[in-house]
Amino acid sequence: MKLYEALADELAGLMAQGVLRPGEKLPSVRQQQERRGVSPSTVFQAYYQLEARGLIESRPRSGYYVAARRFAATPEPEVSRPDPASTLVDVSELVFQVLEASRAPGNVPFGSAFPSPLLFPLDKLGRAVANSMRHIDPWSTVADLPPGNAELRRQIALRYQLDGVQVAPDDIVITNGALEALNLCLQAVTRPGDTVLVESPSFYAALQALERIGLKAVEVATHPRDGIDLGALAAAIGQHQPRACWLMTSFQNPLGSLMPPEKKQALVELLAAHDVPLIEDDVYGELYFGAQRPALAKRFDGKGLVMHCSSFSKCLAPGFRVGWAAAGRFARQVERLKLTTSLAAAMPSQLALAEYLGQGGYERHLRQLRAALAGQQQQMLAAIEQHFPPGTRVTQPQGGYFLWVVLPQSVDALELHRRALAQGISIAPGPMFSAKRAFRNCVRLNYGHAWDARQAAAVAMLGALARAACAASSAA
Amino acid sequence: MKLYEALADELAGLMAQGVLRPGEKLPSVRQQQERRGVSPSTVFQAYYQLEARGLIESRPRSGYYVAARRFAATPEPEVSRPDPASTLVDVSELVFQVLEASRAPGNVPFGSAFPSPLLFPLDKLGRAVANSMRHIDPWSTVADLPPGNAELRRQIALRYQLDGVQVAPDDIVITNGALEALNLCLQAVTRPGDTVLVESPSFYAALQALERIGLKAVEVATHPRDGIDLGALAAAIGQHQPRACWLMTSFQNPLGSLMPPEKKQALVELLAAHDVPLIEDDVYGELYFGAQRPALAKRFDGKGLVMHCSSFSKCLAPGFRVGWAAAGRFARQVERLKLTTSLAAAMPSQLALAEYLGQGGYERHLRQLRAALAGQQQQMLAAIEQHFPPGTRVTQPQGGYFLWVVLPQSVDALELHRRALAQGISIAPGPMFSAKRAFRNCVRLNYGHAWDARQAAAVAMLGALARAACAASSAA
Repeated sequence: MKLYEALADELAGLMAQGVLRPGEKLPSVRQQQERRGVSPSTVFQAYYQLEARGLIESRPRSGYYVAARRFAATPEPEVSRPDPASTLVDVSELVFQVLEASRAPGNVPFGSAFPSPLLFPLDKLGRAVANSMRHIDPWSTVADLPPGNAELRRQIALRYQLDGVQVAPDDIVITNGALEALNLCLQAVTRPGDTVLVESPSFYAALQALERIGLKAVEVATHPRDGIDLGALAAAIGQHQPRACWLMTSFQNPLGSLMPPEKKQALVELLAAHDVPLIEDDVYGELYFGAQRPALAKRFDGKGLVMHCSSFSKCLAPGFRVGWAAAGRFARQVERLKLTTSLAAAMPSQLALAEYLGQGGYERHLRQLRAALAGQQQQMLAAIEQHFPPGTRVTQPQGGYFLWVVLPQSVDALELHRRALAQGISIAPGPMFSAKRAFRNCVRLNYGHAWDARQAAAVAMLGALARAACAASSAA
Repeated sequence: MKLYEALADELAGLMAQGVLRPGEKLPSVRQQQERRGVSPSTVFQAYYQLEARGLIESRPRSGYYVAARRFAATPEPEVSRPDPASTLVDVSELVFQVLEASRAPGNVPFGSAFPSPLLFPLDKLGRAVANSMRHIDPWSTVADLPPGNAELRRQIALRYQLDGVQVAPDDIVITNGALEALNLCLQAVTRPGDTVLVESPSFYAALQALERIGLKAVEVATHPRDGIDLGALAAAIGQHQPRACWLMTSFQNPLGSLMPPEKKQALVELLAAHDVPLIEDDVYGELYFGAQRPALAKRFDGKGLVMHCSSFSKCLAPGFRVGWAAAGRFARQVERLKLTTSLAAAMPSQLALAEYLGQGGYERHLRQLRAALAGQQQQMLAAIEQHFPPGTRVTQPQGGYFLWVVLPQSVDALELHRRALAQGISIAPGPMFSAKRAFRNCVRLNYGHAWDARQAAAVAMLGALARAACAASSAA
């Protein structure tokens, strides 16, 4: 074995053990050279080989970083196979039951929809709130109606520009979190009784939104790694004449799937060919573990049909309830719906975020947040591998903070949810993520909290409960 | 003339001139006695006579106050006579046109929906925001889901208790302003195609809310002084089988009408007899000029059918977007709708208001605000009396900050709106307040801004424009 191969294998081993974590920077060529006494070319060759194996990636003028990828031996789940018929949605009762049960403060929050609030710069945000209130223009309190605070919209437009998307500040409507943005976009393009295409499994809040305004959902096959199946989507468009398509294109909840840029482009082109608006739910887009922010489907939008929705709730300021919609040709309708639904977003939250974004610490915070989430993912994956029953499959998303675990068929996720809750552990059972209550042997687990002995014990307990369910089934 | 009669007339004259303003405290009996050298019984007799004439009112252990009542010679408008048929609402286009035209910052804001932000304690609120963020519990940012921040709900429940209404903190749902609360209450009890009873004229945002979810409006005759006509309401219930009734029971927008307590009680009993939920929109209730807060219809609610909605936007903290619903038997439905519509209200706003209310300066602020509004009302009424054409009628509400002006039939309010805007004056033309575009010779004027030479000149200009319209009509 050559010297550079040995070095590459050694580093790959550190990655597999979680010593080197996804998104983490590798030692520089110079550091390797000086401290290990190897030649620069040995280091370069080792790094090239690791890059070719997809284990690391280079970032211009920054160095080499551990790639976000699969180290776990547990296989990934297969593409979903949803029933192609449409369904009038009625998922809320189950969702409310699970959410209420999961909110008890003492529980291990694997079922939570949020990452740990300790990951966010609440001190700095608090100072931004205080500062912005100190030099507030009184008239702004009654004049900041939709589309929202001008400086905040300018800051958001600047971020779109960095992502290669042209969105004018006036086409951004500030909302009470992304959920309101998504609801308004949905209302802008549908009427009760219309059909909307969603992923399978799909985010339960999307299903609840459809339910609330009397829409039908068609769940479309979705791959846990690269997102919705475009062939199945084309078939569903032909069969159902949908009025909209609501997708999470990056780090889908609950799968964590990430559509590659070229697939996003094909998606936008397919929908544009049938004049179907795309509601792009992108609240996890900033939480990537790879080298750069995933492309937005909005980037490929030539017809103004993509309504891009996001927020600061998952990546900066939970509880501030500041989201937005960049709704393309539907921007004015969304703005008016915002006015008649809840008038405006809260002014202290808007001002504070405008101030915080203007200060320039956001990128550093995001880097820390991504690194923390990537590391926690590795910990939880390792624990699942150790404790869960044979036949388990699990995703390894390249961003976000959810794992999707497919258990052996004999495990009933709702029953597992009840038993786990009795042990002080919340989980999100699969049937929450389907209008048809499918995915009954699946659970979504949140790795957005600091890994500690309590979390480790909770995964072990979940594994034991799942194994017991398997054993009971094979004994019966 | 007896000495006490002379004293009474002198004081009545000061009230008519606006020197003594509605809600203002009269000099005490002792002050009159000491400084004017009259006997206590003379002062008492003068005050008793003024009280008997309805000009002043006594408050236990506090003294005598100028009553909120009519001094103007301009007569008040008559009860409305709406078309009894129901209407699918389509008022938004006009409302948006008017609102957008009115938002230009340089205009005299008679058409505005808000009082002047300079009337609010923004400094104190800013400090409350800063303080509350300093000792924030990070977990509250993800745990303060509906029904909302517990301390804020406790403070609101305490205020209900003072108003003689029993509402448990857990039955209060915090929303993004009253508008969201009203929307959620409406959605909790109606389905598209249902009929809802509203006042005539009615608040345009109520009409827009009905329009947005495909409901039919029946406008019911409403008296400018004491609110909706219960006979007409009973007839409308029989004819239309409404699923809800949405009323502003105190200081209705745009009329300013105030239902007396016994009429509110009769209203609640009438609706209860037909199992029709009442959505009580009470955002102006704190802005009374009389001795005490008007009763809430909610107070007479024996069946849990009254959904009381209010906010802090008009009386304390514009732009904070904190409102709430106390929705009686529908509280859980409203809570769930809140969760699926916009998840939660903004946490910085909720914490700041909980902190502010806990400090105890709210009542003093409200007293100052009420006195300012009452004085501004007198100024605007006097100016209207001086400048508007013969045949004009105008309300004199006992609270709030809107006047409803009925101009001679020959004046077209939409045309007046356009001409006024060309002069830098915004007004709210009558057709905004009717699904049938009625009230074409009416305007709503906002007296919520400090009275100054610019305001005086603007009323004079409006009067001149209205007179010109009358003259053009009689010449034609």
